[in-house]
Amino acid sequence: MQLGMIGLGKMGFNLVQNLLGHHHEVVVYDVNPEPVQALAGQGAVPSASLEELVSKLPAPRTVWVMVPAGKLVDSVLDEVLPYLEEGDIVIDGGNSHYRDSVRRGEKCGAKGVYFFDAGTSGGTEGAAQGGCFMIGGDRQAFARIEPIFRDMAVEKGYLYAGPVGSGHFLKMVHNGIEYGMMQAIGEGFELLSKSGFDYNFEDVARVWSNGSVIRGWLMELTENAFRKDPKLEGIRGVMQSSGEGKWTVETALDLQVSTPVIALSQLMRYRSLETDAFHGKVVAALRNEFGGHSVVKQEE
Amino acid sequence: MQLGMIGLGKMGFNLVQNLLGHHHEVVVYDVNPEPVQALAGQGAVPSASLEELVSKLPAPRTVWVMVPAGKLVDSVLDEVLPYLEEGDIVIDGGNSHYRDSVRRGEKCGAKGVYFFDAGTSGGTEGAAQGGCFMIGGDRQAFARIEPIFRDMAVEKGYLYAGPVGSGHFLKMVHNGIEYGMMQAIGEGFELLSKSGFDYNFEDVARVWSNGSVIRGWLMELTENAFRKDPKLEGIRGVMQSSGEGKWTVETALDLQVSTPVIALSQLMRYRSLETDAFHGKVVAALRNEFGGHSVVKQEE
Amino acid sequence: MQLGMIGLGKMGFNLVQNLLGHHHEVVVYDVNPEPVQALAGQGAVPSASLEELVSKLPAPRTVWVMVPAGKLVDSVLDEVLPYLEEGDIVIDGGNSHYRDSVRRGEKCGAKGVYFFDAGTSGGTEGAAQGGCFMIGGDRQAFARIEPIFRDMAVEKGYLYAGPVGSGHFLKMVHNGIEYGMMQAIGEGFELLSKSGFDYNFEDVARVWSNGSVIRGWLMELTENAFRKDPKLEGIRGVMQSSGEGKWTVETALDLQVSTPVIALSQLMRYRSLETDAFHGKVVAALRNEFGGHSVVKQEE
Amino acid sequence: MQLGMIGLGKMGFNLVQNLLGHHHEVVVYDVNPEPVQALAGQGAVPSASLEELVSKLPAPRTVWVMVPAGKLVDSVLDEVLPYLEEGDIVIDGGNSHYRDSVRRGEKCGAKGVYFFDAGTSGGTEGAAQGGCFMIGGDRQAFARIEPIFRDMAVEKGYLYAGPVGSGHFLKMVHNGIEYGMMQAIGEGFELLSKSGFDYNFEDVARVWSNGSVIRGWLMELTENAFRKDPKLEGIRGVMQSSGEGKWTVETALDLQVSTPVIALSQLMRYRSLETDAFHGKVVAALRNEFGGHSVVKQEE
Repeated sequence: MQLGMIGLGKMGFNLVQNLLGHHHEVVVYDVNPEPVQALAGQGAVPSASLEELVSKLPAPRTVWVMVPAGKLVDSVLDEVLPYLEEGDIVIDGGNSHYRDSVRRGEKCGAKGVYFFDAGTSGGTEGAAQGGCFMIGGDRQAFARIEPIFRDMAVEKGYLYAGPVGSGHFLKMVHNGIEYGMMQAIGEGFELLSKSGFDYNFEDVARVWSNGSVIRGWLMELTENAFRKDPKLEGIRGVMQSSGEGKWTVETALDLQVSTPVIALSQLMRYRSLETDAFHGKVVAALRNEFGGHSVVKQEE
Repeated sequence: MQLGMIGLGKMGFNLVQNLLGHHHEVVVYDVNPEPVQALAGQGAVPSASLEELVSKLPAPRTVWVMVPAGKLVDSVLDEVLPYLEEGDIVIDGGNSHYRDSVRRGEKCGAKGVYFFDAGTSGGTEGAAQGGCFMIGGDRQAFARIEPIFRDMAVEKGYLYAGPVGSGHFLKMVHNGIEYGMMQAIGEGFELLSKSGFDYNFEDVARVWSNGSVIRGWLMELTENAFRKDPKLEGIRGVMQSSGEGKWTVETALDLQVSTPVIALSQLMRYRSLETDAFHGKVVAALRNEFGGHSVVKQEE
Repeated sequence: MQLGMIGLGKMGFNLVQNLLGHHHEVVVYDVNPEPVQALAGQGAVPSASLEELVSKLPAPRTVWVMVPAGKLVDSVLDEVLPYLEEGDIVIDGGNSHYRDSVRRGEKCGAKGVYFFDAGTSGGTEGAAQGGCFMIGGDRQAFARIEPIFRDMAVEKGYLYAGPVGSGHFLKMVHNGIEYGMMQAIGEGFELLSKSGFDYNFEDVARVWSNGSVIRGWLMELTENAFRKDPKLEGIRGVMQSSGEGKWTVETALDLQVSTPVIALSQLMRYRSLETDAFHGKVVAALRNEFGGHSVVKQEE
Repeated sequence: MQLGMIGLGKMGFNLVQNLLGHHHEVVVYDVNPEPVQALAGQGAVPSASLEELVSKLPAPRTVWVMVPAGKLVDSVLDEVLPYLEEGDIVIDGGNSHYRDSVRRGEKCGAKGVYFFDAGTSGGTEGAAQGGCFMIGGDRQAFARIEPIFRDMAVEKGYLYAGPVGSGHFLKMVHNGIEYGMMQAIGEGFELLSKSGFDYNFEDVARVWSNGSVIRGWLMELTENAFRKDPKLEGIRGVMQSSGEGKWTVETALDLQVSTPVIALSQLMRYRSLETDAFHGKVVAALRNEFGGHSVVKQEE
């Protein structure tokens, strides 16, 4: 089928290649003309503006927005909505907050445009070769875009999850679980690193990737990481976070759900941003106050 | 090759079937004669005592002990060691504490018997059809038993990890990671259950099993569990634990490693054993004391 | 000095008594006429409306708002602001979110009215006999209201903390710390309750209240609680929460501060609202799937 | 009354001064002759060996052991026991593990010597001027030594807790609670330090020490610490730990008690020993593997 792709970063670019490989006709746009040209060379239809992108699609249209979550999604939506007509479909494939999706769904709905929130997992590799999609929106209208997901996803790798918001909610929780799993894996290898045994971490990740209870893609990626840098000496243990883990914890707080492991995974990421946390200074100072325990002085 | 299997519970029984399927000759023993007879019917050599089991194996012998971790391993070892000779091999395939394995390794070593600690993962299914093995012990002697592991494991699913103790240490940490992963998955589904969206959990687990970052065996098992009981209404949320998670946390405490997620996973299991935790009573009483906040009275 | 008190609940009522005891002239108002009359009988000036309350105060006026945090504060503010003049002072003594206080400060400031956010601690007892106040707002204008705080607080028990918002921020963090302390105390007594020793908890709380490192008001309240109910058999361990702990964790997430103990204290309160948490069902089901471990069936 | 004090470190020295101030007759011994001489100058009876110390006490004797917890307690006990007689009393006032106390109690009991485990809190200041004591041992024999505790403790600051072990168990849990409280306080001030408000931390600790819910000795010590170093710039946030927090968590694991806050307090101390935790490297590497997220490179 035909669709437009707005936003050709790492993820959008790979999704277009994935779609082209399945013989879809994709009109592409990005503020940066380079990826537009590159994909045009691979069979995509280039466009130089959102207006042009829409004009090159037959009604009812399908437009996939793949830009960084946040205000950019709103501004793209504000710009493209005037060109769209009743019955057209907009898909937000980014990591948007599910509440923003609900709000955007209402905005589109007011114009008769169907809005879908499609949480996308599987990394850049998945985007190119077969990912995982969790989609919220109108059930009837979903039938029109299902062929896209069937082609872009691995087998059984897409789900119509429910009304608008349910897709990004699923993706958010998926990432919360991911945070917990990654922290658990990290803690396990830290234990190994201090065990006194001289483990080859790549070998460990490999054996755990084959036949164990904890086998899965994250463990395979762990094997890859250790293959490239056997003791990870080249990188620092600074754990950035993209927002979805934080949203998961905030949502847990709102819903009064106890999620200690997901919460701690997020908080340990924040802890990793510090080399000398202030709470530690307070505790060290207190130990000194009541017990005369020595503190570690700041080096001059 | 030929080996003896002591202990024919869920795991031992399945391992023997796995070995027979790969044309190994297995002499089997259990205090319970039933599984002995059952396996004899499938080609195993039955034995009615440890002495008989040893006598039916040609030197140098290989004896696999697969009994519940703890004192039983010691008593089996004490009973079988007198029948063994220098150069024989004993493998403990159970979930023993790695420190016990180090101790047992020294005991066997004093008699010239090689001791191997083989952490086994993959569940009962893995034991039967191809599991994951992490093995510690003498590197030279390992060559003699490697064929067993090559056959019983899935491809790449075994690892010679290092000296005695390193196998069970790896298995322990594996289980610690498993605890963290399971708790993360559980928390995620609890969030879904309170989200206000009407998710089909089996579908969610399926889509997350296909192409997502968190795909893996545990997510596939989650799908299976929800297939059988879509909202898990038939079971209570009581999370038993077998000891390895606890050992992981204790080891982390000994090694001064910060493992918040693994620790919390264990502690939430303990929390699940309570319906009305005492710490909650104390906090509720304190809120009442300083703020006049009402408490929930015990029903008569 | 003269001031108006809007809201005569547990806290407001006690504050007025405190003020009257220090010979301040207090005009009082509440939607419920009963506490108005009761305080009138103790020397306060009754008023039947916000307009009347304001009219009975000489300019520049000081009005203390002591109503439940949230929209009620806004509606009181909206109603009272039209009667106020440039140079008047409004104090919000409730448990408002500091961001709301910043917003309200701007709103009042636009009219030339000084807004102060006064976090109040010490419980109902403190409100009546001497509490603890953390105040944000204009430094110059603070001099005008300092006498109130000097009288209502215990010695050294009030602090001009900085600009608008800084008072409620301090109070929020105070409560976060309080949550952590209470959870720690609760956990300690739970350990005692399972120790095998037959401790008298009231005696324990008393000895810890006298000379120990952890002595303080919370431990004294613990002693009181156990005096009334030696094993807390009459109450359930359901830990409600009022919002400030949640805000503390949300703020920590926003500021990227690692606050594991405060976060866990909040999450354990949520956990206490469940008798059978869904995450536990998932974990129990998973253990059954891979290991054949038995689950606890739901009773019919 | 008369008693012997073995071990004149920070705590033992101060206890002897406390006892002398209450007109007790104290025979003192330490491997280091300096504190022996110093206390002799203050009225204590010096001794040059354990044998001499015992010989200078009239039967039935009372001997207080105040040496670092661990093997030293055992070796002192092994050395002094032969000189003691049936009916004599040994008090271990150190931070011994309660299980060691139970074992030592049995050893002493076999000789007819009463063993008491006296957990001591209140810091060095408390030892000198009035501390907090939690005592386990024989109830009848306790009457003989109660006068010591009545004098050395602040009012209501000692408790006969139960049989041998119950005193050190209480002290252990006390320290676990202390860890939780300190971490909560530390987290609170870390939040303040990143709040954007320019708080004076000494002022904050002071106001929280006066009239607030979280007032207590730890908050007063926090005030002292910030008075000396307003932003704690001179010290690093390295939180050492003495063992009791670890024992508390281990005991919680053994007793299957969920103590998330105490556990996390201990684990954050371990985290503070690392400047670049290995689990962080693993997580950062994984983020890079699946999402192409950049890692922070190790500086050359």
